[in-house]
Amino acid sequence: MGRIEIRRNILEANETLACRNREFFKANGVLVVNVMAAPGAGKTSTILKTIEVLKDRYACAVIEGDMASRIDADVMAERGIPVEQINTGNMCHLDANMIMQASGKFTFDTPTILFIENVGNLVCPSEFSLGEDLNIVIASTTEGHDKPYKYPSIYLRADAVLINKTDLLEAMEFDRKMFCDGVAAVKPMPPMFEISCRTGTGLDGWAQWLSAECERKFAQSRGKVAGR
Amino acid sequence: MGRIEIRRNILEANETLACRNREFFKANGVLVVNVMAAPGAGKTSTILKTIEVLKDRYACAVIEGDMASRIDADVMAERGIPVEQINTGNMCHLDANMIMQASGKFTFDTPTILFIENVGNLVCPSEFSLGEDLNIVIASTTEGHDKPYKYPSIYLRADAVLINKTDLLEAMEFDRKMFCDGVAAVKPMPPMFEISCRTGTGLDGWAQWLSAECERKFAQSRGKVAGR
Repeated sequence: MGRIEIRRNILEANETLACRNREFFKANGVLVVNVMAAPGAGKTSTILKTIEVLKDRYACAVIEGDMASRIDADVMAERGIPVEQINTGNMCHLDANMIMQASGKFTFDTPTILFIENVGNLVCPSEFSLGEDLNIVIASTTEGHDKPYKYPSIYLRADAVLINKTDLLEAMEFDRKMFCDGVAAVKPMPPMFEISCRTGTGLDGWAQWLSAECERKFAQSRGKVAGR
Repeated sequence: MGRIEIRRNILEANETLACRNREFFKANGVLVVNVMAAPGAGKTSTILKTIEVLKDRYACAVIEGDMASRIDADVMAERGIPVEQINTGNMCHLDANMIMQASGKFTFDTPTILFIENVGNLVCPSEFSLGEDLNIVIASTTEGHDKPYKYPSIYLRADAVLINKTDLLEAMEFDRKMFCDGVAAVKPMPPMFEISCRTGTGLDGWAQWLSAECERKFAQSRGKVAGR
């Protein structure tokens, strides 16, 4: 069995489980947001700040993915956010099976946004569906404007792109046009939001877009239930 | 054949090729420095600045690893540095076979430091030997002080750790002690250098350490040749 075939088998097996996750989430009224970014781009901060804005309207929960440690899960738990930590060991991404195990531990008794913080990695998470509704990629001004050119596959999956740490945009000489051209070279331009988790800039616009996505999903779910 | 066995086979095949690379580099008087970091931590800048300091003493060459683009190779070539670009496609790391192909394109007629800039990734590159003499991990203050806890495997391989972007250390509230404790939890503390590629701070100390490593390696090579 060749390496390419093994790879295909692994991805196909994952896809089957991702479909089951998708059905489970739909049946339970859960909108799933898969958050992908390089290490240190601000995944945890963005999820925290987004939940702060949306928590009065929606129930929120988080799955944290890291090779090791419970640092991020502890931060969420301190704020009273329902959270499950996945430690992947030497695995470089989350997969559908891990999400199936972790999501079974929550009680979803009201429409919920489930944020999945993937392992910090701009390569491998792009290949593994988790059963998510939305894939979000967070770039940060401190990592530079050339990343879409160097890591195109993660941007190819992005339903929305967030540029974080915009309070440092000028100091970092972050070239917004070069960044956007790089994303646009990969796919039709997705919605893009410039935010700063430190100052709070831009978070409302992003949360508003996410709310609209939630409304659409939850309306669909209600429609389906009503139509039965 | 199970997934673990497949994984072991891939790693063993890579190790065999890495040994061949090691022999090739030894025979040609090449010291190989494998540079690993998250996307945007400053791998290219650090390699450039290090070569600026060392170029009068040693010949230097670079292999650039990226999923896509020739951005970094073009920067090196503009400065007159011998460079080969590897585009890995959807692969998340460099492997020994890629290095074998690329290093065969250089002419090493004098003792040389070959810098390999690995794909920006704190997970996968840690598993694949390339035939290198030294593994260097670059952290940056902007990505936070918790990374050794979350990505221990890359720190386990580090022969030296560089903390880059120290001009932003205070603004980022980077906790040096927490970072160092995280590295020390993984392995006996390797040499650590605080640098800023932007201001030039700390580069001399790091280059001095690297020079000493070079002298040791090149003296060993000469000793072996003389002893034949």
